[in-house]
Amino acid sequence: MGWTEILGLTAGVFTTAAVTPQIWKAWKTKEVDDVSPGMFFVLITGLALWVIYGFIEKDIPIIATNGVAFMLNSFMLFLIYRYRNKN
Amino acid sequence: MGWTEILGLTAGVFTTAAVTPQIWKAWKTKEVDDVSPGMFFVLITGLALWVIYGFIEKDIPIIATNGVAFMLNSFMLFLIYRYRNKN
Repeated sequence: MGWTEILGLTAGVFTTAAVTPQIWKAWKTKEVDDVSPGMFFVLITGLALWVIYGFIEKDIPIIATNGVAFMLNSFMLFLIYRYRNKN
Repeated sequence: MGWTEILGLTAGVFTTAAVTPQIWKAWKTKEVDDVSPGMFFVLITGLALWVIYGFIEKDIPIIATNGVAFMLNSFMLFLIYRYRNKN
């Protein structure tokens, strides 16, 4: 594997895993009122389109990274609705 | 332009623009305590790596979409520090 490929994979791991600190924070504090559900709706829609695009192009990295990101961000959207206006 | 290309571009517009509802919400409410700065740190790092990857691969769509996302998400991180613990 070349350096460029490693760079691309590292970039993919960062952008895919980015939502985990937000999930962790929401899980701990159960406070999500300042988090925008709209952001996660738009993001999940885009990630779903990327997965479809990946299947058409038969591109495994696109399917894998966007598929994992789709699941993580869907879980965050679920937490937003679970903890919303709980007070 | 083929349907697959349009699908990929649409996916890119969605994932790139996703942060704008969060920026809008933070701007309006000036409340960001539930938003994770860690999420935006990791995301911005990943997007910067994608831009570098795009330059190495001379891939304009990767540079453009991740470059715009980098700027939008950096602005959101700025808003988090600007409005944090203001109460």
